[in-house]
Amino acid sequence: MRDQYHDELDAITASLVDITRLAGSAINRATQALLDADLQAAESVISGDAAIDQLYADVEARAMDLLARQQPVASDLRTLITSLRMVADIERMGDLALNIAKVARRRYPASAIPSPLHATVLEMGQVAQRIVTKCSSVIAGRDLEAAAELERDDDVMDELHKRLFTVLLDPGWKGGIESAIDVTLCGRYYERFCDHAVSVARRVIYLVTGERVAAAEF
Amino acid sequence: MRDQYHDELDAITASLVDITRLAGSAINRATQALLDADLQAAESVISGDAAIDQLYADVEARAMDLLARQQPVASDLRTLITSLRMVADIERMGDLALNIAKVARRRYPASAIPSPLHATVLEMGQVAQRIVTKCSSVIAGRDLEAAAELERDDDVMDELHKRLFTVLLDPGWKGGIESAIDVTLCGRYYERFCDHAVSVARRVIYLVTGERVAAAEF
Repeated sequence: MRDQYHDELDAITASLVDITRLAGSAINRATQALLDADLQAAESVISGDAAIDQLYADVEARAMDLLARQQPVASDLRTLITSLRMVADIERMGDLALNIAKVARRRYPASAIPSPLHATVLEMGQVAQRIVTKCSSVIAGRDLEAAAELERDDDVMDELHKRLFTVLLDPGWKGGIESAIDVTLCGRYYERFCDHAVSVARRVIYLVTGERVAAAEF
Repeated sequence: MRDQYHDELDAITASLVDITRLAGSAINRATQALLDADLQAAESVISGDAAIDQLYADVEARAMDLLARQQPVASDLRTLITSLRMVADIERMGDLALNIAKVARRRYPASAIPSPLHATVLEMGQVAQRIVTKCSSVIAGRDLEAAAELERDDDVMDELHKRLFTVLLDPGWKGGIESAIDVTLCGRYYERFCDHAVSVARRVIYLVTGERVAAAEF
């Protein structure tokens, strides 16, 4: 029985990695949609969110089922409860990519990001991609080094997020109010996307080391 | 043993109500801080968030302890897991009130909300207050009627949120870019505050009826 239990626990971890990859693919396509006014990319993120939601519901059901049937204790219980929390974070990452794709679709055929901000948003997309890739490694291999790097990447994201506002508030900003709203919202979505990845990494660190990393005020 | 177990479960529910009240008090003071440029109100929300975080950590620890010691099954297990999720939603509501208070502090001694938007933001604050009060009733008494009302209040919040953008995008908008950014962010914070309350209400409905309410794409 215990072996089957651990197989099921491993299968849940594998599903967490799968859903993280889907969220990563979503944020990449959302960034492309945003910068290139690529409607097809935006639509693929929007229609693809259902697969993330389905996998989320599936992981939840399997974790609840394991909890009820096997009544795990100690570290197994902690792992399972942590999986339930991580999957909620990752599902939310998918929603944030979806929000970005919707901004891109709303502004099509124009790009929602005026050209003076293209480079910064491109970099935000790249940092988000790095973060989500490391997030997968952290979940799959409990890789504490990747978790530490992920935190540093998140600091870079925070700097890029501040840079958006510096450009928006420059007297030379000619993008108008509508663009400022879009940029403000997209900046927030990227930042939150990465916050959730940080949260996942911290949960894994806590599982491995028992040391809780101080939660920043998101 | 079972009686003590249910006492502890009831105590967790009571703590969820307490933390919801704290989040409600925070959003009220944050709205006041925002509209009246009331620095003292803003500071009280900012310093008060630690109490919400502490109560959150406390509820988590007690729920995990109960899970490990009592190994509940069936509806008791579901109640406990749901409590863990609800407390995360409510803690996040506190963070969103904190974010609003920080916007108010950043703009002090000016008000972050230009006068043409005062009435709308005041109404958003009032709707948030109604929603959080109903959220407490839903948790404390599993009140399905209050849960249904809360959903309707959330629709009102969504309308108010749209109204903000209508004003910002009116050619007559004279508030400038900085104000547009503040209004966009605060609008998002109020909306998310209420989304989390809806999420709590839906979790309670699911506990009571076993029927999952379709999650809107937040």
